[in-house]
Amino acid sequence: MKKQILFWSMMSWMVSVGLPSFAQTVEDFKPSEVNQPGKLYPQVNSERKVRVQISAPEAKVVQLDLGGVKYDLTKDEKGVWTGESAPQQEGFHYYQLNVDGAAVPDPGTIYFYGAGRWGSGIEVPAHDADFYALKDVPHGLLSEMNYYSNLTKAWRRCFVYTPAGYGDNKDKRYPVLYLQHGSFEDETGWGRQGKTNLILDNLIAAGKAVPMLVVMDNGYATKPGEKSPFAASIFEEVLMNEVIPMIDAKFRTLSGREDRAIAGLSMGANQTMHIAMNNPGHFAYYGGFSGTSNYPSTEPLDATTFLNGKFKDAKAVNAQFKVFFLGLGTAEPHPFPGVVKAFRQMMDKQGIKYVYYESPDTAHEWLTWRRALNEFAPLLFK
Amino acid sequence: MKKQILFWSMMSWMVSVGLPSFAQTVEDFKPSEVNQPGKLYPQVNSERKVRVQISAPEAKVVQLDLGGVKYDLTKDEKGVWTGESAPQQEGFHYYQLNVDGAAVPDPGTIYFYGAGRWGSGIEVPAHDADFYALKDVPHGLLSEMNYYSNLTKAWRRCFVYTPAGYGDNKDKRYPVLYLQHGSFEDETGWGRQGKTNLILDNLIAAGKAVPMLVVMDNGYATKPGEKSPFAASIFEEVLMNEVIPMIDAKFRTLSGREDRAIAGLSMGANQTMHIAMNNPGHFAYYGGFSGTSNYPSTEPLDATTFLNGKFKDAKAVNAQFKVFFLGLGTAEPHPFPGVVKAFRQMMDKQGIKYVYYESPDTAHEWLTWRRALNEFAPLLFK
Repeated sequence: MKKQILFWSMMSWMVSVGLPSFAQTVEDFKPSEVNQPGKLYPQVNSERKVRVQISAPEAKVVQLDLGGVKYDLTKDEKGVWTGESAPQQEGFHYYQLNVDGAAVPDPGTIYFYGAGRWGSGIEVPAHDADFYALKDVPHGLLSEMNYYSNLTKAWRRCFVYTPAGYGDNKDKRYPVLYLQHGSFEDETGWGRQGKTNLILDNLIAAGKAVPMLVVMDNGYATKPGEKSPFAASIFEEVLMNEVIPMIDAKFRTLSGREDRAIAGLSMGANQTMHIAMNNPGHFAYYGGFSGTSNYPSTEPLDATTFLNGKFKDAKAVNAQFKVFFLGLGTAEPHPFPGVVKAFRQMMDKQGIKYVYYESPDTAHEWLTWRRALNEFAPLLFK
Repeated sequence: MKKQILFWSMMSWMVSVGLPSFAQTVEDFKPSEVNQPGKLYPQVNSERKVRVQISAPEAKVVQLDLGGVKYDLTKDEKGVWTGESAPQQEGFHYYQLNVDGAAVPDPGTIYFYGAGRWGSGIEVPAHDADFYALKDVPHGLLSEMNYYSNLTKAWRRCFVYTPAGYGDNKDKRYPVLYLQHGSFEDETGWGRQGKTNLILDNLIAAGKAVPMLVVMDNGYATKPGEKSPFAASIFEEVLMNEVIPMIDAKFRTLSGREDRAIAGLSMGANQTMHIAMNNPGHFAYYGGFSGTSNYPSTEPLDATTFLNGKFKDAKAVNAQFKVFFLGLGTAEPHPFPGVVKAFRQMMDKQGIKYVYYESPDTAHEWLTWRRALNEFAPLLFK
């Protein structure tokens, strides 16, 4: 009996990951939508396999390194190496090539900052990609802003999304969502991999979300002189004392607590939960995508001690937040499901209201976060 | 005698390119300023040599491919390859690595679009780098804007620099400079490699240039259905009929001819000269950096026939342009010096006024164009 269960679970696994040795590959590969102009590779097929190709006539071993698995490529008589991965989940994935032991970006793709480096990425077309597609609707601007931080004694950068019409409606003021990336990512993530501008353009055009600004800063901030990005973070101080006042001064914002939301993914969810709970006078909306502040623990939480008892008084927390939002992909790896579950159990036990969204069949990756933003943004400022 | 000349010319060449076999390398290498966060390589020393390093334990041959020369790296016992180039000219250079025949980006640098691909770049610190340094002055915004082009039936993108204060001075309107990249580059070039925002921030803060918008579009535009980027260009139509009206509608611009300038580098210089001459009612300022519309010919020009006689009537041309600017690096390769010289000789013969700027010791590269912009922008809209 046990053997039979093992057999069927292995069969099901082999079907789902589509081991190349057992399955024929469907030859309907198309160039990835994040390829460099004119580049034919990498490609993705209808099984969601990724095929890469690179010329390396003198190489001995060339591999595709994707999703923690290294796939050997094979060389043709001209020295061109080709090969493909097992089927991938829908959405965006970071990857790299290995050429005789050198880990390098694929020269076929544009590049993204994630996993601690600028490197290659691939889009496995999602069945619901329409919500972040570039469509014939009014488009906002995504603006890059340099600023000097006195707290870190360093130049920093943020990106600011201003919705369509911001330039025309000279007397209109707008609410603001502060939106943070995850660990080993930076302020470029939500604008590039995250498609924030397109998601907001589409939601606003459809009348589903109110026009708002979105500010995306870098979640790594340390005291002057600290060399390690893992030194004690002063991001909360930078955001509260430097970024928010600067945005309120330079843009036509509404600056009341009910006009300001804060959200983040993974590390950013953890950071922004701290910030929202420490500054109840500043935020009436919170979004935590694939992360909560009990990370990485999956143990039950005691509301009297967790975050210094910030969730102890359910009535106060319910009054503080117009929306408290949590999101998670159903295919996320340990410890994320357990972490978020423990947090939700505490919330349920306390009787604190929250909205919970699950992204079907996505892992700890950007399609989860695009979808979470698409669910969260319509709830804001209403 | 011939032999002696050959000997001295070879000696002079060896001194100027600093063959490693003849020269000791000065060990004062520092990480390049366009490295990825935390990456120690590539590095540049005081001789302007570029040193790269990559781990590739199984590789047989690893090379640095920079400035048209391939430099062999050497491997240590851990499989890490290191090596350096001959001295380079000051400024920005595109390059790549070759690992057993695979041409790949260096995983140490951030990436730039040029030479027809997103790839590695290096900054060899320029002695005059202060004019494009990130300094404690008010900073403008660099904004990314998606737009649908009916003429090309495609989504296109431009970047718009708005100066510091644009957001505050709600009733102030601004003149506009349209600024174009070169061949095998795109709309990202002037904002990244070109440092346009920092050059303008610094000039405006110093009172040397008037606050202006700068619009950077993609110079490749073809009719719907054309697959090749080398098909007949309709960039002039896109710029005149789509981009300029859109910018004038979405931003607080001044839209008279004396409030509009157009400039470009190399291919962009050629394109924008055509556009300026074809639309005298729209532009009172022209800048051509490292290029003129007689490219690639170095033959004498006949003003009665060149560009359909657009330079025939000197009085009209002198009345049309408040500033007609030409820039060139003194180290540019053939045919650029001859092309620009032939154009200037025609201008001189016709008695047409122009400003001529030479960038010392720079080739057909971005330091030439940063300097040209730094000279050109202060002449505008005064």
